Amino acid sequence: MAAGAAPLHPYIPADLHLPDYVPNLLPWTTILGIYGTASVIVVALVWLISGRSKVVKTDRVLMCWWAFTGLTHTILEGYYAFSPEFYKDKTGFFLAEVWKEYSKGDSRYAGRDTAIVTVEGITAVLEGPFCLLAVYAIATKKSYSYILQFAISLGQLYGTFVYFIAAVLDGDNFAASTLHYYGYYVLLNSFWLLIPTLISIRCWRKICASFDAQSQKKTKRG
Amino acid sequence: MAAGAAPLHPYIPADLHLPDYVPNLLPWTTILGIYGTASVIVVALVWLISGRSKVVKTDRVLMCWWAFTGLTHTILEGYYAFSPEFYKDKTGFFLAEVWKEYSKGDSRYAGRDTAIVTVEGITAVLEGPFCLLAVYAIATKKSYSYILQFAISLGQLYGTFVYFIAAVLDGDNFAASTLHYYGYYVLLNSFWLLIPTLISIRCWRKICASFDAQSQKKTKRG
Repeated sequence: MAAGAAPLHPYIPADLHLPDYVPNLLPWTTILGIYGTASVIVVALVWLISGRSKVVKTDRVLMCWWAFTGLTHTILEGYYAFSPEFYKDKTGFFLAEVWKEYSKGDSRYAGRDTAIVTVEGITAVLEGPFCLLAVYAIATKKSYSYILQFAISLGQLYGTFVYFIAAVLDGDNFAASTLHYYGYYVLLNSFWLLIPTLISIRCWRKICASFDAQSQKKTKRG
Repeated sequence: MAAGAAPLHPYIPADLHLPDYVPNLLPWTTILGIYGTASVIVVALVWLISGRSKVVKTDRVLMCWWAFTGLTHTILEGYYAFSPEFYKDKTGFFLAEVWKEYSKGDSRYAGRDTAIVTVEGITAVLEGPFCLLAVYAIATKKSYSYILQFAISLGQLYGTFVYFIAAVLDGDNFAASTLHYYGYYVLLNSFWLLIPTLISIRCWRKICASFDAQSQKKTKRG
């Protein structure tokens, strides 16, 4: 008779305790479709607007990335970090639907795992706003543009490392199916390993080149 | 009759399960004394050796810091990350004694908390060796010196943020006494908030100044 206390949810491990869980009200295609469409609109807008400035193409691509990842951090992850009861949502609220769906790839989200909440909190509160600052910094060619992008990228990498290492230490058994494991847990997060790595390397090189140029100034211009 | 299974340890929470726990064999004064003396020797050696080079004082101080924190990361934290049963040590091995003692300020260490092991693993394997590289980079005035120091400092800050935020999320009740709480958990870790913050700010400024100098080269020298 323990009504409402039974683990009637689609997540793994099955004994995860989620009282008053309400299943997804939107199908996964709609959830991914809305996120995908919104992201494409953001990227397209930043691309078009930045085209009117004197910013080179690589920097315009980076502005698109920072806008996309910054809004993902602040809105999606910001909602998660401060909504411990999202899985009880009955209204079909989009952000709750996102995390109910994503938890099928990683139930630590629904289960409010400490490592997850910690990393998501840092990502949403610190990294998100700094990503949006990076869009501005690139557009206005600030001298801190590279070091800022480097800092955020390292933060994203550190967060993703914690994300994967903590999963392995805790048994790596949080996905509802192999498809959810590879589609959500592995694939989606791999973008936040690959892209920050590329940006970090680029910024590292630009910064080293700046110091090299500085120390060679006299020799070069002699 | 559950001999060996009873929580006969000095840590909080008292119900932390640590079968076959062996108490500290060295007094805390000896443990801190050895760590302190070893650290002073490392710092003194780096200070003396760097005095023979053309490195300025600030950079010599930084070399001392990187040698000290790098050896702490690789040796002390490296041992912890890969020694899940340190609390069973019967030999009085110094590194096991360190973590048995430190666990009085934060029992998540003895309890093998996921966030702790994750952060300590990243710190020991990635940050430790890079700290030692920073000593070399400063000594040889590499163009990557500031960006490397910035990267490690951000990593240390991220790790310390995870350390404190995860503790708060999990109830912040891991210290055996108020003295252990402030002496070990708060005081010791605060150095890894304060010093990386100062170094990050310094590196950020140096890097921005380098880009400013680059973009103003023509104007300045015209």
